[in-house]
Amino acid sequence: MRQGVISAISTPPGKGGVAIIRMCGDGAIGIAERVFFPISGKALSSYPPRMQVYGRIMENGRVIDDGMATYFIKNASYTGEETVELSIHGGVLVTRTVLELLYKMGTIPAEAGEFTRLAFLNGRLSLTEVEAIGDLLEAKSTEQLKLFSEDSRSRLKNKISEIRDSLTRLLGSVYARIDYPEEDLGELGDEEILRELVSIRASLSHLISTYRTGRAINEGIRTVLVGKPNVGKSTLYNLLLGEDAAIVTDIPGTTRDTLSATVPLGRVLLHLTDTAGVHTEDVTDTVEKIGIERTLGRLATAELVLALFDAGDEISDEDMRIIELVKDSSATAVAVITKTDLERSELKDKLSRHFDEIISVSALSDPDGTIELITNTVERLFTDEKIDTSSDAIIASARQHGALCAALDFINTAIEAYRLGIPADAASSDIELCLGAIGEVDGRAVSDEVVSDIFSRFCVGK
Amino acid sequence: MRQGVISAISTPPGKGGVAIIRMCGDGAIGIAERVFFPISGKALSSYPPRMQVYGRIMENGRVIDDGMATYFIKNASYTGEETVELSIHGGVLVTRTVLELLYKMGTIPAEAGEFTRLAFLNGRLSLTEVEAIGDLLEAKSTEQLKLFSEDSRSRLKNKISEIRDSLTRLLGSVYARIDYPEEDLGELGDEEILRELVSIRASLSHLISTYRTGRAINEGIRTVLVGKPNVGKSTLYNLLLGEDAAIVTDIPGTTRDTLSATVPLGRVLLHLTDTAGVHTEDVTDTVEKIGIERTLGRLATAELVLALFDAGDEISDEDMRIIELVKDSSATAVAVITKTDLERSELKDKLSRHFDEIISVSALSDPDGTIELITNTVERLFTDEKIDTSSDAIIASARQHGALCAALDFINTAIEAYRLGIPADAASSDIELCLGAIGEVDGRAVSDEVVSDIFSRFCVGK
Repeated sequence: MRQGVISAISTPPGKGGVAIIRMCGDGAIGIAERVFFPISGKALSSYPPRMQVYGRIMENGRVIDDGMATYFIKNASYTGEETVELSIHGGVLVTRTVLELLYKMGTIPAEAGEFTRLAFLNGRLSLTEVEAIGDLLEAKSTEQLKLFSEDSRSRLKNKISEIRDSLTRLLGSVYARIDYPEEDLGELGDEEILRELVSIRASLSHLISTYRTGRAINEGIRTVLVGKPNVGKSTLYNLLLGEDAAIVTDIPGTTRDTLSATVPLGRVLLHLTDTAGVHTEDVTDTVEKIGIERTLGRLATAELVLALFDAGDEISDEDMRIIELVKDSSATAVAVITKTDLERSELKDKLSRHFDEIISVSALSDPDGTIELITNTVERLFTDEKIDTSSDAIIASARQHGALCAALDFINTAIEAYRLGIPADAASSDIELCLGAIGEVDGRAVSDEVVSDIFSRFCVGK
Repeated sequence: MRQGVISAISTPPGKGGVAIIRMCGDGAIGIAERVFFPISGKALSSYPPRMQVYGRIMENGRVIDDGMATYFIKNASYTGEETVELSIHGGVLVTRTVLELLYKMGTIPAEAGEFTRLAFLNGRLSLTEVEAIGDLLEAKSTEQLKLFSEDSRSRLKNKISEIRDSLTRLLGSVYARIDYPEEDLGELGDEEILRELVSIRASLSHLISTYRTGRAINEGIRTVLVGKPNVGKSTLYNLLLGEDAAIVTDIPGTTRDTLSATVPLGRVLLHLTDTAGVHTEDVTDTVEKIGIERTLGRLATAELVLALFDAGDEISDEDMRIIELVKDSSATAVAVITKTDLERSELKDKLSRHFDEIISVSALSDPDGTIELITNTVERLFTDEKIDTSSDAIIASARQHGALCAALDFINTAIEAYRLGIPADAASSDIELCLGAIGEVDGRAVSDEVVSDIFSRFCVGK
């Protein structure tokens, strides 16, 4: 933790009605009292904490701005540190000038996420809560808001605490049996320890299983739209985006750049890429060629391919090429067949062998129907409908998932050891390692690099 | 005044650590209590006003966000209305979602500047204070910050009040003498009334005289840079901007677009336009031609022309053309002569007849010296050095200036009438008209259109 008082503008950059400047650290109130003068003539600290007080911000007897100040005492603030918040006029220059005055008074510019980092270092937030707050600020879907709301954050934190407590209790028993094997300490026997280990494993497995859903909601699914030229990819892309993002024309090959966007679709988030149409003939146009190469590149890392086919056409060489591409890809493949009123069963038969799902829509001109069909299919393929963001503890970051998987491995080893009758002290080290992995999840035992990485995604002022 | 509770995001748009949502109007606290639940389990209104309270924002039992709420009672808030401020997580979607929840609860979206408008309608701010707050949010220079700080705003407001009070007292005396001419009411005699009118006129004249300075500081000076091709206009433009805004090359005619920027220069603000060089030869390049036409257009409305000359060259036809242009322009003309180590007295003689000031710099490559010379000259030409933004009442808008000039006209007519011995009731109507004009300045008597125009420049949330 850095020494001194840190300060930053906590509201978004740019002009607004109000800006909030936050100061944090031992001495913050003292610094505030050197620049902020309540209109009453009394000192800021003569008011109760958390009370908004109107006054003037002054430098060498000159008024810089007027506004409200509120102070928070140590251990009763967001960060756990002594804190002062100034609510001032939200002009760009006036805000900057007040912040610079605080620098002149000896405060240090806060780094990105440093206020929240203080809250973490002071034990006021677990690392999963920190991650959730970071994700909340970036949220693009209502489902993400639910996933990172205060009650959801608490649920995950409590679930992790529960597993930690079980492990700690268990470890106590195991140690007691190692240290005093002859005595009856009222501790657990081997059978009971094994039962407890299995129960913890079940909790861990369950939590890990929520990641599939949490990931689809939060981190999103890399999705590629493919189809022969002029089959309607850009129309579908615009449908999913809900705006005219891609230029739609009747001329094949209109989309040469790969367009990308992050779109909430039902519960999940799609990282959607529209691609140039896939040709089989020699493509002479260089720009178009680059577009197609990009399509292949995107396919290589995609998790979901939405492939468009037109039931009104014969199956073309280009369609066959797409089927080949999908076969080679590890992504979940969904075929979307349009003009199904003209549908040939031949097409559906051909596709059913290579696609995970086939969606039939009469025309892309029925936006609501098409979106609903695709939404239901994607949700079914990528989330667990039994998991409810409003009531379950859900993990939603690769970091949490990795640490929990490590914890599961250690507990499995411990169970194996008990089953094989290996001495308890061997198992105890696995339980310790498991506890360490849990410590990485909530941040009680985590490397500085990991913490720095998490906070680097925050903006200054949070 | 609209009925109901208005609400808006008061912080700048975009992602930040914290966002403030403000609700204002009778019933704001009641609405807050339907969505905000202090973590203590108590009601928000059970806390004292102005106290920041931590809690959850909920919709139908679901947590939307957590944050702080503060309520302000009627007649003890910025607007004078019952107010609640929510300080929540500054993510774009989460902020939008909370605002929409408030709409669902029956609040009305606040219009641009509507909170400040309420403060005005409730008599908590005069119209000059409102204008100053609007200008403060837009301020680009430290001098503007001083001009619109809380103490400066108060000074102007008090000055106007003083003039108003003098007029009101005077009008009382005049009426008394009209109604009861025979009685000695201890009121002012004709001589004294005349003396008082002259004194008010002096106050008005003084206030009006501050506009020249206030305008240069706040509204800024339309400034055009001219000079023959390759004389160094773009170099000077970049110097004044303090950045490489214009592309500088050795090839004459590089600047074809007119570049514009608003730059603080010393106390004043320049609306600076760099122009295409002025040629005399036939210009065949159409783009260049348009550039030159634009130069002439800018010159027609300019208030300050900075014309560059190179003392190292012979006076060219192009230089002569610039001198002609300056002669035809009503703008204040400043010649900036470079390479004065090579100076020919002939050039300076020629220029001195047509320019208001001549600045000699040895080379534009001495940025500090050049900037200082130009700054001092422009400040001297456009501001009154006796006027101090930290201690004087200064008007800084064309609207205020116009109304004060009208007030001055009326007072002059009244003085004239008294001097000519015209009956007092004729003079009284002039004093009434003068009072009306003063009412336009501080907003006590001003049309809805003027008020709407002023608030239209505000952002939503202020």
